[in-house]
Amino acid sequence: MSGIRVINVGLGTFLPALLDHDIPVLDVDFTVPGSGDERTLQLLKETLPYYGQVRAANERAVAALVMGQAQAVRVLPARAVLPDLEDRVILHAGPPLTWERACGPVRGAVMGAVMYEGWATTPEEAAGLVARGHVRLSPCHHHGAVGPMAGVISPSMPVWVVEDQDGRRASATLNEGLGKVLRFGAYSPEVLARLRWIQDVLGPAIDRGLVERKGIDVKSILSRALHMGDEGHNRNVAATSLLVRQLAPALAATSAGTVLGEVLAFLAGNDHFFLNLSMAAAKLAADAAAGVPWSTIVTCMSRNGTDFGLRISAMPDRWFTAPAPAVQGLYFPGYGPADANPDLGDSAITEVAGLGGTAMATAPAIAQFVGGTPGDGVRTTIEMREITSGENPSYSIPALDFSPVPCGFDTLLICRTGITPVINTGIAHREAGMGQVGAGLVRAPLAPFVNALDSFVQMIKKGEFQDVAES
Amino acid sequence: MSGIRVINVGLGTFLPALLDHDIPVLDVDFTVPGSGDERTLQLLKETLPYYGQVRAANERAVAALVMGQAQAVRVLPARAVLPDLEDRVILHAGPPLTWERACGPVRGAVMGAVMYEGWATTPEEAAGLVARGHVRLSPCHHHGAVGPMAGVISPSMPVWVVEDQDGRRASATLNEGLGKVLRFGAYSPEVLARLRWIQDVLGPAIDRGLVERKGIDVKSILSRALHMGDEGHNRNVAATSLLVRQLAPALAATSAGTVLGEVLAFLAGNDHFFLNLSMAAAKLAADAAAGVPWSTIVTCMSRNGTDFGLRISAMPDRWFTAPAPAVQGLYFPGYGPADANPDLGDSAITEVAGLGGTAMATAPAIAQFVGGTPGDGVRTTIEMREITSGENPSYSIPALDFSPVPCGFDTLLICRTGITPVINTGIAHREAGMGQVGAGLVRAPLAPFVNALDSFVQMIKKGEFQDVAES
Repeated sequence: MSGIRVINVGLGTFLPALLDHDIPVLDVDFTVPGSGDERTLQLLKETLPYYGQVRAANERAVAALVMGQAQAVRVLPARAVLPDLEDRVILHAGPPLTWERACGPVRGAVMGAVMYEGWATTPEEAAGLVARGHVRLSPCHHHGAVGPMAGVISPSMPVWVVEDQDGRRASATLNEGLGKVLRFGAYSPEVLARLRWIQDVLGPAIDRGLVERKGIDVKSILSRALHMGDEGHNRNVAATSLLVRQLAPALAATSAGTVLGEVLAFLAGNDHFFLNLSMAAAKLAADAAAGVPWSTIVTCMSRNGTDFGLRISAMPDRWFTAPAPAVQGLYFPGYGPADANPDLGDSAITEVAGLGGTAMATAPAIAQFVGGTPGDGVRTTIEMREITSGENPSYSIPALDFSPVPCGFDTLLICRTGITPVINTGIAHREAGMGQVGAGLVRAPLAPFVNALDSFVQMIKKGEFQDVAES
Repeated sequence: MSGIRVINVGLGTFLPALLDHDIPVLDVDFTVPGSGDERTLQLLKETLPYYGQVRAANERAVAALVMGQAQAVRVLPARAVLPDLEDRVILHAGPPLTWERACGPVRGAVMGAVMYEGWATTPEEAAGLVARGHVRLSPCHHHGAVGPMAGVISPSMPVWVVEDQDGRRASATLNEGLGKVLRFGAYSPEVLARLRWIQDVLGPAIDRGLVERKGIDVKSILSRALHMGDEGHNRNVAATSLLVRQLAPALAATSAGTVLGEVLAFLAGNDHFFLNLSMAAAKLAADAAAGVPWSTIVTCMSRNGTDFGLRISAMPDRWFTAPAPAVQGLYFPGYGPADANPDLGDSAITEVAGLGGTAMATAPAIAQFVGGTPGDGVRTTIEMREITSGENPSYSIPALDFSPVPCGFDTLLICRTGITPVINTGIAHREAGMGQVGAGLVRAPLAPFVNALDSFVQMIKKGEFQDVAES
């Protein structure tokens, strides 16, 4: 054996055998970039001359993504705050979508919202209005807003208004709780009655409380909640409890009697209430990071139950899509994968900001809830470090000695490694009107990242970033 | 070297050297029982013939310690609920204490309570009354109650009433918050004013809320809070937030206006509010486990700032004491070990029930707060498994794959290993009137466990347990 010396490049399985035979070995950890795909490899090569610009731009984008404030300042009707909201429009999660291609839960939620607005009285009538274009569909993301699951926002719904230090704003609906709820595609009379109560009672009460309190610091609550077992997407019990404790005195100062009692009882019973606020704060951060020329940082991931879509900073208005994947997870009793709609919701904006799947190590209980172990959660967060180009100092991980969460998915790193973001999500029944059937994890599909890289390379070749930079 | 084969018994430091030289070795993990102390070893030997009875009794005691419910049902004045409370008595933390031997913070708190009750108008006058025996001192533990730090309870103070399924009750004061507070020995006018507000406003409001809500399940909140970074002793932010969220609707249904606003604002600002409830639930559990003949399970650990004291199940009324040790921890800016009072408070009852230091692995943030790392917290919990004879299925540890907390300190195991319980605690200034100066960890002293074992062996020899068992 003596005399043999080995340099082992990228063949992890060879290493133990070499060591077993006491053969001196220099081990080089190497993976073929682009997972061996020739087109991806070619695109990556074409970006190499611009590495300096891209890196600097990504640093700027990640700084914008993590440094901003997020103050919840009001709760107001969507029509009063969302930009470019026409009269008869229903917003939905994910990239643009036609009624014909809409999945069951989105159809259910849209029909419910049309009836809630009083534009129709039956589901069939509502469906007809949308199908004939009398009610238009538009993505929440096009109006500075996000919504969980079906993500439906109609003009009368009250929305959170979350603001940063520059006056930038983002919005999300108020969370309805679990069970039969619009966001999972249910539209029964009890669902619509709850939406009206949210419009008439809950929204105005929380708005009065926010005004009285001069706002709530959303990032500060998230920061504490990530030390309390939340990851800011699928588990929100700590953040919800901290929010309610902070807000309760102002609620009591501005509401009384039945209203106050109903509002506090609703907040006591809804462990997910903070989710939408977490999403609005993440959307605000992502929007701040959007539009940096040369930046390959992901500023949006979202799903409409038919398509998965993403946007990157340098091309803020372009969607790159692929079929929405199936979610791997655990099902409520009586349900299984055959009942599941493909991946759905704007809530993957939390992963973009370093929460959710990216922060999985902070939430051992959710790792269990979606079918894993606390160790799986830690491994997921560590894996996400491979494809993020920064970290979010506002959010740290007790289980990793309080190191910050990885943040800023970089399209280049994703294409180079073939690793895609892990998203922590709920599972909706595939039929309209049913509701939630489980929760789990899903990997973003790789193709739209490669397509985004392709467009990015085309823009470089056309010299478009120089123009943008000079404008 | 060939031919040498080693059996290594208990010499951990030899092992690496042997392995380095490729010497085959059978390693036996062995520690001399009783840490080599002859008296301890003799006592342990004398218990050997009774191992069966002791083990069975300890199983009964641990079952009683972990299986009971803990429902917070009322908040009432101490004089209305605590058994054997005379007219002019001040209760304090820890084992029995004379005024002459009382430490600074206990003196400060006692003087404050005497003025609060209106029995004196100056600290000097108050001290005189106690010194001359016109106001008597008595341990909280003798009256079914516990109090954090100085642990002072006077007859007019409202106390939590926590009840189990058998109607057994335990009590604790309402937590005053941080800063200048009675439990850390402060007695300024603002401290007494807050106590009067607690008596007049907070206590009655919470009582009305509890009656409206038909009680609060304390163990259920603790169970969730241990998945949210609390350990139920030094960190209570999750449990406090969950409690406030649960209780707020009932508070709003039974209070209004300024009262409701003040109460909710106080609860919003006090992250330690749940501590006293955690202590009352632990006291309730410990009392349920007390009085099992033959049982060497620890049912009380407590400190009055002068002495550390413990009690074991088989001898429920006997205190075994030693000088209160110094706390190892971190100090607030401007303070150091020279300012610190020795270990103080009834709050070590939480460790007895499997919380606090025993559950250190659940609270990575507190490991940091007391000067360690999250890994130290995990190691502490794992070490506590060496000296506990059971576990508490109500409380589990995310960082250890949701395994239950160790529970039921066994005097035999403590004497055999020389490992004593770790207690997670605050540090009071040694002078009356000052307040908190830090937080840290403290090891219970070994001597009182050995003394308890000694008395236990004497009782065996006198045949007293047979008598008890037959009675």
